[in-house]
Amino acid sequence: MERVLTRDAASHIGERILLAGWIHRVRGMKGFSFLILRDRAGLLQCVVDDSVVPEPLALRNETAVELVGTVKEDKRAPQGAEVTVEKMRVVAPCLEERPPFELNLKNHEVTAALDVILEHRPVSLRNEKLRAVFKIQNEIAWAFRTYLREQGFAEIRTPKIVASGTEGGTALFKLEYFEREAFLAQSPQFYKQMLVGAGFERVYETGFVYRAEEHNTARHLNEYYSMDLEMGFIRDEQDVMDTEAGLLTFLFDHIREACAEDLALFGATPPSVGGKIPRLRLDEAKKTLAGRYDKRYPEGEDLDPEGERLICRWAQEELGSELVFLTHYPVAKRPMYTMPDSDDPMLTRSFDLIYKGLEITTGGQRINDHDQLAESISRRGLDPKDFDFYLEIFRYGMPPHGGLAIGLERITAQLLGLTNVREASFFPRDRTRITP
Amino acid sequence: MERVLTRDAASHIGERILLAGWIHRVRGMKGFSFLILRDRAGLLQCVVDDSVVPEPLALRNETAVELVGTVKEDKRAPQGAEVTVEKMRVVAPCLEERPPFELNLKNHEVTAALDVILEHRPVSLRNEKLRAVFKIQNEIAWAFRTYLREQGFAEIRTPKIVASGTEGGTALFKLEYFEREAFLAQSPQFYKQMLVGAGFERVYETGFVYRAEEHNTARHLNEYYSMDLEMGFIRDEQDVMDTEAGLLTFLFDHIREACAEDLALFGATPPSVGGKIPRLRLDEAKKTLAGRYDKRYPEGEDLDPEGERLICRWAQEELGSELVFLTHYPVAKRPMYTMPDSDDPMLTRSFDLIYKGLEITTGGQRINDHDQLAESISRRGLDPKDFDFYLEIFRYGMPPHGGLAIGLERITAQLLGLTNVREASFFPRDRTRITP
Repeated sequence: MERVLTRDAASHIGERILLAGWIHRVRGMKGFSFLILRDRAGLLQCVVDDSVVPEPLALRNETAVELVGTVKEDKRAPQGAEVTVEKMRVVAPCLEERPPFELNLKNHEVTAALDVILEHRPVSLRNEKLRAVFKIQNEIAWAFRTYLREQGFAEIRTPKIVASGTEGGTALFKLEYFEREAFLAQSPQFYKQMLVGAGFERVYETGFVYRAEEHNTARHLNEYYSMDLEMGFIRDEQDVMDTEAGLLTFLFDHIREACAEDLALFGATPPSVGGKIPRLRLDEAKKTLAGRYDKRYPEGEDLDPEGERLICRWAQEELGSELVFLTHYPVAKRPMYTMPDSDDPMLTRSFDLIYKGLEITTGGQRINDHDQLAESISRRGLDPKDFDFYLEIFRYGMPPHGGLAIGLERITAQLLGLTNVREASFFPRDRTRITP
Repeated sequence: MERVLTRDAASHIGERILLAGWIHRVRGMKGFSFLILRDRAGLLQCVVDDSVVPEPLALRNETAVELVGTVKEDKRAPQGAEVTVEKMRVVAPCLEERPPFELNLKNHEVTAALDVILEHRPVSLRNEKLRAVFKIQNEIAWAFRTYLREQGFAEIRTPKIVASGTEGGTALFKLEYFEREAFLAQSPQFYKQMLVGAGFERVYETGFVYRAEEHNTARHLNEYYSMDLEMGFIRDEQDVMDTEAGLLTFLFDHIREACAEDLALFGATPPSVGGKIPRLRLDEAKKTLAGRYDKRYPEGEDLDPEGERLICRWAQEELGSELVFLTHYPVAKRPMYTMPDSDDPMLTRSFDLIYKGLEITTGGQRINDHDQLAESISRRGLDPKDFDFYLEIFRYGMPPHGGLAIGLERITAQLLGLTNVREASFFPRDRTRITP
């Protein structure tokens, strides 16, 4: 007998089917029980006569069971069907009387603290809402890859063990690599540029990157999943922003369609990007913050989290957009590979994308001239010789190029309104946590 | 003017188009040159009058250029078209007179040694054949994800920084994680099992894993891309092998169709799996090797590389298959989570998949009973307390489950007949190499 998933039961009305899954909830009646069975596809109500139950513990929540029964139409039930169970088998017993917190509250709400949830991560994910985060996140990753594949981007897989060559701006994790030391890559930056130049022209990568940052905030992870792209033969950074606008249009439209039920658990609505995201120069953004919210920054200083929130509020109110590109960051605030702006060499052809008050993307055009790049490295007090592995391809006709990275946990958290980015990581690594 | 790719030129006969790419080769004639332009999509012959060339160095191989010209039909040309160039612009010059080795030999052949190729990896990939390895590899990864997605598998992203919990059998890279030590994950094994139990039931992951192995062979990488799957509510390990047979059928059929031109560079033909891969017990395989090839192993010893090659030769000759599952490995040769065989508790419900003489998959059914697993851990001299993070979900109704991992570089190398697995890694990490 082939197993049938809960969501497919309604297409087997009158038939005898085999179900498998976990006991979500049981309501004991006189002589029988209502049993809600949960599998990867959803929930289904079953009616189990006491005589069918092999042992009393078989009805404990979270027990893994197989049920054979006949499907009855039931228009009131969410699945449109109910199953009268004829045979019940315990596939794997639940040895614990209670889970660490209530998994099956109304609307799948979770009342446990985040620390408790993460400490017991696999059991926590038995909760439908916590699991829904990752169903939606998977569709985000799928949409990212699918859109870029259709746009002629090649997937790349670049090393996470690197010899040195810090890009600057962050601390690195140190590794014992046989008799020498190595580091965990903070991003695929150098490698994705090199592979654009290698002839792939347009590349993307989805994978973990590593930041040995000391801060332990709700926005930071020490291991996070970066969705990177890089593209050659561009005019300037505007092409890269155009690509991101097209990508996010596809992505959010896909999520809206594919994840309606899961989104509803969070009351979340993906933004309608419609191919366009407003672009605002950083200096103009600062003027706006000063004028409108009396929020002022010293010369050359970046927006703080409050400024990012306020500028999004402004963009929402004035431009009707939950997303806004901030552009023209100062040279001093960007890595050495960033292309300076030809109109003002103190500024760069770079951008951040702010979504609901949080930066989810950093990107820009890169320097593609070999000598200019070598000089930019020197000007940061670094030795271009240490970057030979990176610079070589720039001597072989490196076209103008640029790219960006989207933090998968961050975009997920912002879409769903999660207050901590850890909720959007299966097994987050932070300042203090490396288990489970 | 929108850029047109070389492969699309033929659909613009008589039109003026903009091309961009690299100069692949130039043949100077009297007053003009034949110029082969290369972009991410292929090669295209262009005719450039001397008067159009902006500077003599503009015609150097590997220069990045933009060309504007008119498309002429040319049935003899591979693209069915030729372009008469009217305007030429150097996008980025090639500063080197010659690349480290010849990139554009006939049939895109490469004569350089592997060390030279890897030392200059980005430049090397300007060669069409070396780049084709990754075009094909990308389709393998795409097929893996796509097939499993259609079969109801959820993608997972599990941490590569782990606290301890060696699975055994390999050395781990050690990491400074703030004030304590951590390790790089040798596989997503524990985590993928935990997420099956968490309610996803069927999961896959594609990502790097790390082995601090001292050996430096043509079959080993210290960082390799593992394509993992794990599935719950199975009958036994036969279900997992069935899934792999279905997956590889889809995968190889897809490659045959999508990559015909690139495969031809290697003279490679994907096997016709047709949903079935022969299964052979390890003890029977050893009898066959002894009887047929006079190749004998001491009791309890695994096949060596020569044995793997011979058993594939046998499978090819006798069963007409380039792939063969070896099953029923001894308990002593498998990790502690492996399900023992109920008929012979010295053996396990495990398998390897051998493809053209190389193991590309290890898999099997796992122990799903909590106490049996804890005991198996103890029996290896390990302390179950150290595995609490892993064992917890086994107390909450852990269904029978199993899974496997396919090494992406290995399956690519075997398909294309590459003699060293490093050729199938963008930037291989081995005993001595961590650059570029």
